[in-house]
Amino acid sequence: MKFTRFQADSTVYTGVMTEGAVKEIKGNIFGDWEFTGKEFVENEVKLLAPLEPNQIIGIGANYVSKVDDLPSELPDIPVFFFKPTSSVIGTGESIVIPEGIDQVKFESELAIIIGKQAKNIHETEVLEYIFGYTVANDVTAPQYFHQDGHWTIGKSFDTFTPLGPVIETELDPFQIRVEARLNDIEKQNSATELMIIPIRKMISYLSTVMTLKPGDVILTGSPVGAEFVEEGDVIECEIKEIGRLQNSFVTANILT
Amino acid sequence: MKFTRFQADSTVYTGVMTEGAVKEIKGNIFGDWEFTGKEFVENEVKLLAPLEPNQIIGIGANYVSKVDDLPSELPDIPVFFFKPTSSVIGTGESIVIPEGIDQVKFESELAIIIGKQAKNIHETEVLEYIFGYTVANDVTAPQYFHQDGHWTIGKSFDTFTPLGPVIETELDPFQIRVEARLNDIEKQNSATELMIIPIRKMISYLSTVMTLKPGDVILTGSPVGAEFVEEGDVIECEIKEIGRLQNSFVTANILT
Repeated sequence: MKFTRFQADSTVYTGVMTEGAVKEIKGNIFGDWEFTGKEFVENEVKLLAPLEPNQIIGIGANYVSKVDDLPSELPDIPVFFFKPTSSVIGTGESIVIPEGIDQVKFESELAIIIGKQAKNIHETEVLEYIFGYTVANDVTAPQYFHQDGHWTIGKSFDTFTPLGPVIETELDPFQIRVEARLNDIEKQNSATELMIIPIRKMISYLSTVMTLKPGDVILTGSPVGAEFVEEGDVIECEIKEIGRLQNSFVTANILT
Repeated sequence: MKFTRFQADSTVYTGVMTEGAVKEIKGNIFGDWEFTGKEFVENEVKLLAPLEPNQIIGIGANYVSKVDDLPSELPDIPVFFFKPTSSVIGTGESIVIPEGIDQVKFESELAIIIGKQAKNIHETEVLEYIFGYTVANDVTAPQYFHQDGHWTIGKSFDTFTPLGPVIETELDPFQIRVEARLNDIEKQNSATELMIIPIRKMISYLSTVMTLKPGDVILTGSPVGAEFVEEGDVIECEIKEIGRLQNSFVTANILT
């Protein structure tokens, strides 16, 4: 099932997307919900980010180029980071390159949406706690990485976390490819088997540290090929089974 | 005014604390709220963390020992980090030292609660966007800091962010001292004028990066004197004008 949030007639709705149509639902997507009977034509609504995340947790440098490059031993402490929920936008919105920033990078990623509270869960149980999956663009301004290694500021600017277009609940995350095209030229295209820390291990580990909650979004890392962009560039992040997340880059001074 | 959350008869309430009494309120503390008329004796309720934060943002290494040590130039990029909202506990609750961790540190801090959405605000406007202040203990397991500088895991364990006992809305943050006592022995006691990046500059800077929202909590850094603790230790973080945040350290295996 494909869950979405969308805007029509200045109202924000939650819905389920079917062939060409979006059906409004009410309730909690992680709990009880029902169809309201209201239906929209897909082309006549503006899609928003498919959820308002509770928190956003990312993992750094998590892909290799080919299976042979996968390390035989995993790192003791993976590189995790948080992104603020205020950085989320939907497909079709502009990513704003802040004033004074020369270099901004796109990173296409598979994003996991947690559906149930999870603490100390075993790798074999992980998939039961996942509600669904969406596509994320973990936009980054490395120029704002702190010299001592902290990535916080460089990943926290408003508009730096496009999510969407939908949350797909019926996905096999081990049978997909994470893609990105910059101005129609392919830049990223990797199977998720190239993740250094695979999904089950990643979520299980995180759950030993913190209680994961419904609505937590976990960005699972970006394939090799992410690049710097410029004003006017159009980035499409795609996982075929979920959909295409398309955003253009603009500079802040254009907006003011 | 002192806002609080508390539990009585297995119910969670929001309230305002007065001399010895807690008066229930309903509504949104950042917007419209009113007294319900229900009142409790302070000693008969269990105080909880005074809010469920929207997000928690901390600043690293932000105090000097004496005014003469304040740097003449501020860093270009301050060290900011996020803590998960799942790490929050209230006064009186136990801080759990996770299994396999040898060293955990307390850090007493002034915590700022944002009350209004804030983007690109000037230093002179910052105080208008602050709803109130509470005391925080930014508990940290440096053993889980990543070798490349990422602090995420070391600061994210459940129970690692005690907050409380109340949110004081009528505080002059420039006229207070941030204190900590470990097993009744004073360890930290600094005026906030010893902050390297002062409050107005810190919030103004953050607001140029991300849109701050009501319920965002900003931990303003810890005075010199934070130390490692052991199981059984009792830590009291205090700002006299707000109150005392007291927690004991236990090890995880005691709980299981």
